[in-house]
Amino acid sequence: MPLWKVYHPVGAFSADDKQQLSERITALYSRLPKFYVGVVFQEVAADSFYVGGAPASNFVRIWVDHIARTLPSAEARTWWIGQCDEALAPFIRDRGMDWEFHIDETSFELWSIQGMRPPTANTEDEKRWIAENRPTPLTGT
Amino acid sequence: MPLWKVYHPVGAFSADDKQQLSERITALYSRLPKFYVGVVFQEVAADSFYVGGAPASNFVRIWVDHIARTLPSAEARTWWIGQCDEALAPFIRDRGMDWEFHIDETSFELWSIQGMRPPTANTEDEKRWIAENRPTPLTGT
Amino acid sequence: MPLWKVYHPVGAFSADDKQQLSERITALYSRLPKFYVGVVFQEVAADSFYVGGAPASNFVRIWVDHIARTLPSAEARTWWIGQCDEALAPFIRDRGMDWEFHIDETSFELWSIQGMRPPTANTEDEKRWIAENRPTPLTGT
Repeated sequence: MPLWKVYHPVGAFSADDKQQLSERITALYSRLPKFYVGVVFQEVAADSFYVGGAPASNFVRIWVDHIARTLPSAEARTWWIGQCDEALAPFIRDRGMDWEFHIDETSFELWSIQGMRPPTANTEDEKRWIAENRPTPLTGT
Repeated sequence: MPLWKVYHPVGAFSADDKQQLSERITALYSRLPKFYVGVVFQEVAADSFYVGGAPASNFVRIWVDHIARTLPSAEARTWWIGQCDEALAPFIRDRGMDWEFHIDETSFELWSIQGMRPPTANTEDEKRWIAENRPTPLTGT
Repeated sequence: MPLWKVYHPVGAFSADDKQQLSERITALYSRLPKFYVGVVFQEVAADSFYVGGAPASNFVRIWVDHIARTLPSAEARTWWIGQCDEALAPFIRDRGMDWEFHIDETSFELWSIQGMRPPTANTEDEKRWIAENRPTPLTGT
């Protein structure tokens, strides 16, 4: 489910940075199977990256799709945005880069992993997917 | 309308594979003008592609935006997801890769092709666009 | 807020073209802080870019996420699509390229810039962000 797409300046992150940041992002979703969390990093050269019409060489722009869960209230959304900002801070804010992110929520029913419709929240199937950290055939419970 | 974005491991698909897979994807939308179906493939190196915090070297992640039509019921959505999985299988599942995809449905009214708002479903204009496989001036019928 | 992602043929745009086009896109959003407008250009080789199952070598495909504002009526949406087409025309239509774009509207509450939730429309905070063209601490007015 969550798919994070991270546009960043060329050379901003080492492979190790990217792994650590993806671990921090994954940790945000502790109620979900870990393998739900996908993160794609993409370098964007300053001459292909514009903010307000000016080339951006110090900016990280992230967009996220949430699929497995929706945030149910304004309070939950505020809390969540804060959690995300905290997860990102050591690799972006604390290095003096600018950043922006936004999240879209898309349909649970238009989602498939490994040929299966993922189990609904808090089912036995989901618990097993969490415990085993891989998609296995659904039992419907 | 549908825009498919396919993130895949470096070298996973040849140009011929990509063409064939895009043809299979296009065939899913047999009720629409063929030229509505856009597919963008993007190689992602394992050190820029993470699943559950671990580098992904054998994983295809696809996101799709649907614009021209919405799937009207849970049954339609289930059926459609199955169709998509079947279209992808020979190039992904049958080659032993892991995969995940999700679909968002976006506004028909916020869409433009070649400077025109595409015709609504089942109109004469849409039939002509299907028959000619190109966008031509609308007659409003 | 608006994030524009522009997939284009290899070599279709110079750095200067991209800057100018991003300025035209930014000018569309004259009611917003300029720095809200992000544009990411991405070259796609013809063997990774398909329209209707055929390689696309002369096609620009754009997707946009709107976050700060929603278009409130069918009339507003029609007008807006026309404005976008006009902004793009000199760099795409007038150069004989084909193009398509669509816009999604995502949640204002699931958006963060520089660790802050952007101010709501027409507040003093938003006016200051517009005037200074940078995000500064919110006063809540």
